[in-house]
Amino acid sequence: MDFTKLNGLVPAVVQDADSSEVLMVGFMNETAVTQTRETGYVTFFSRTRNTLWTKGETSGNRLKVVSLVVDCDEDTLLVQARCEGDGNVCHTGRRTCFFTPLAPDN
Amino acid sequence: MDFTKLNGLVPAVVQDADSSEVLMVGFMNETAVTQTRETGYVTFFSRTRNTLWTKGETSGNRLKVVSLVVDCDEDTLLVQARCEGDGNVCHTGRRTCFFTPLAPDN
Repeated sequence: MDFTKLNGLVPAVVQDADSSEVLMVGFMNETAVTQTRETGYVTFFSRTRNTLWTKGETSGNRLKVVSLVVDCDEDTLLVQARCEGDGNVCHTGRRTCFFTPLAPDN
Repeated sequence: MDFTKLNGLVPAVVQDADSSEVLMVGFMNETAVTQTRETGYVTFFSRTRNTLWTKGETSGNRLKVVSLVVDCDEDTLLVQARCEGDGNVCHTGRRTCFFTPLAPDN
């Protein structure tokens, strides 16, 4: 993969493997990609905390990888996954982080 | 929206409004978001060419916006859209840019 375009990171889109709903977008560095593949659970690189974090490591709502697909220019990852625990991916307690229609003043 | 985390850009995930397939990921700056909303067609900011580009402006395969949804921390956009023209989003002539399973040596 090409990690050069974004200072060592690529965006990773997490899609529900069953419903095809887009659940969240995070970023991965090369180590996060390796860890995601080796463990079978989605691990991101936190830009704000500057560290790796396995999604759901605290809540139990881990994302079990079903498939990993790179895009045509190899700078973005599509992760098809199933959410464990209560099935809610968003920290607000919703299934997905995408629940707010873009408002006119945004 | 919060454009501060990525030097004025946010990732924009384009999802087929009918099939729910993830078609591509691009980046938008604030002007690209405004133009996307005003025209109803997806416009990105090209990081390599440092300019706005309306997807499909040459090929005719424009992406007509069906809905725009921001994520919980307002730093990512989900665009549900329909592809016009021949319906192929990827420059390789495929419907989606995501067609390559991540290989073991990637």
